[in-house]
Amino acid sequence: MKVLILGGDGYLGWPTTMHFANEGHDVYAIDNLSKRKIESEYGVEPLNIIKPFNERVKAWNLNQKNKIKHYVSDLLNYKVLCEILEEFTPEVIIHYAEQPSAPYSMASREKAVFTQYNNVIGNLNLLFAMKKLCPEAHLIKLGTMGEYGTPNIDIEEGWLNIEHNGRKDKVLYPKKPGSFYHLSKVHDSANIEFACRIWGLRCTDLNQGFVYGISTKEIDLDYENLATSFHYDSIFGTVINRFISQVASNIDMSVYGKGTQKRAFLNLIDTINCVKIAANNEPKKGEFRVFNQFTEFSSLNEIFSSVSKTAFCIDKEPHSIKTPPSLIVFTTSFFCFIKISWT
Amino acid sequence: MKVLILGGDGYLGWPTTMHFANEGHDVYAIDNLSKRKIESEYGVEPLNIIKPFNERVKAWNLNQKNKIKHYVSDLLNYKVLCEILEEFTPEVIIHYAEQPSAPYSMASREKAVFTQYNNVIGNLNLLFAMKKLCPEAHLIKLGTMGEYGTPNIDIEEGWLNIEHNGRKDKVLYPKKPGSFYHLSKVHDSANIEFACRIWGLRCTDLNQGFVYGISTKEIDLDYENLATSFHYDSIFGTVINRFISQVASNIDMSVYGKGTQKRAFLNLIDTINCVKIAANNEPKKGEFRVFNQFTEFSSLNEIFSSVSKTAFCIDKEPHSIKTPPSLIVFTTSFFCFIKISWT
Repeated sequence: MKVLILGGDGYLGWPTTMHFANEGHDVYAIDNLSKRKIESEYGVEPLNIIKPFNERVKAWNLNQKNKIKHYVSDLLNYKVLCEILEEFTPEVIIHYAEQPSAPYSMASREKAVFTQYNNVIGNLNLLFAMKKLCPEAHLIKLGTMGEYGTPNIDIEEGWLNIEHNGRKDKVLYPKKPGSFYHLSKVHDSANIEFACRIWGLRCTDLNQGFVYGISTKEIDLDYENLATSFHYDSIFGTVINRFISQVASNIDMSVYGKGTQKRAFLNLIDTINCVKIAANNEPKKGEFRVFNQFTEFSSLNEIFSSVSKTAFCIDKEPHSIKTPPSLIVFTTSFFCFIKISWT
Repeated sequence: MKVLILGGDGYLGWPTTMHFANEGHDVYAIDNLSKRKIESEYGVEPLNIIKPFNERVKAWNLNQKNKIKHYVSDLLNYKVLCEILEEFTPEVIIHYAEQPSAPYSMASREKAVFTQYNNVIGNLNLLFAMKKLCPEAHLIKLGTMGEYGTPNIDIEEGWLNIEHNGRKDKVLYPKKPGSFYHLSKVHDSANIEFACRIWGLRCTDLNQGFVYGISTKEIDLDYENLATSFHYDSIFGTVINRFISQVASNIDMSVYGKGTQKRAFLNLIDTINCVKIAANNEPKKGEFRVFNQFTEFSSLNEIFSSVSKTAFCIDKEPHSIKTPPSLIVFTTSFFCFIKISWT
């Protein structure tokens, strides 16, 4: 299968790229490196050392049988996007290429505008390029569970069968996003649904929970060169990563609000598996298919408590912490505990 | 009342500007003249002669007691927008400043991108500027009934009380827009609802039917200098205007599709009245209030038939047609007929 991965240098994009290459697919990864630019802007960096995009592709290609193609470009550059689609003729396009941070999108007007401009217009360019050059390709677009907000009715998968005043319809599930980033994803989904409806494109919209974990079969082949990022900062760090970092640094864990708010989570490996299942089972022409993907559902207090308990066990058995870098190993162990205790 | 009108040079914006000035309010109109630019680009122009923005403001100010302030600027220019809000301190902001053509937004990728960029980012700038400089002001945002699409359930006003699997919630009404222009309005509404929810802004979102008519009390004071546009082209001309022009030119009237599709319509005067009612009754702080505004609801075939019948009467009584310009007078007469026959 010819798989184009947009945002192939990201936390999810890079492990996905390697995984599809490892499974024997023809893989082409592109990225505009905007996340690395935002890291520089804020002076934040992942806890672990992440090689530059071209170096990690080189490291993979040096040792692995199935090579990865890559290119640094931007979905906002329509001309280059078209050249890539024309040359590569993808069958599946996995679209992670968006500004991924809700806090960043809320930090200022400039950042809200950048987020919606980059995400919405980039996605719009992609839809037009697909219509022109590969209308049969399957778009797999990454969204987030946060798009739904926290309604008082059951969250369904993108669509809702509704009865109102004695008549029925199937409508897009009404969303109530909580940041300009989440709104950008809602706008994207609306644009994509329209493109499927009028142009006959086919799309799977994957609304994910918070993804955690830094270990996959491919990363573990050569952690030093192939690692994906562990962010614990206030821009890209998600709640589990921040709790873990706080426990490991012996500082108080910060739970925002009452901590009773429940959120959906899944491991990085599960994200990749979900994407793979979607890729192997394409929707019909013209279908806008939505899946919600998560494996766990917990309140922040429950996460907090799990991290505390796990940290306590580790205090008693310090031999289970290895270096370097100790926190990374700790993190991996932590997720083993979490996975056991939650299953 | 201090009223800022964004898009004050447009088909609706200009008559609204004059009306609020005529009612004694302190009125400031701004426009980026992008509609005139699109007219040049396509080589289309209104059937009637429309004076440049500054000339019609000059004509108004020369003869009328309550003067209009105006300025040529763009919502994409955040700095100037902030200067205007700071200087003028509006109590009501009426926001018409968007690329208004669905066919234009569908003509090419560039035009879809321009539409969503101009509308969504301009509106986002406005929200941030209001939050910073006039968080108590009342935003009246013009949307369209086309945002809802044609669902099989009753269309409500922006919100929907829903029961699903035994639980209840009030959600944003699920929309199914039919063009990238309509989508831009849906995105705008989602961004505004969020700004009301988290920043406590107050907004009235007015979803209008197709607006027709070129006569208001203020326009009729000096038609030559104060007219608003009558577009009959494929970019800005709506269905009623096109039917009228076709009848007047003695060419076949074109009904797209089966003609059974029903659409909502309202006269220009009713649009202004709706906006005025909204302005005089502001929503609560933090409220995102939605009204659907139209006075008639007809299928294209019914409109077609009304135009035919009316034209036939006029053929029999040619004395009722006055010049110059004959078509304009005909149009006004036509709407008298329509209003009578539909009430």
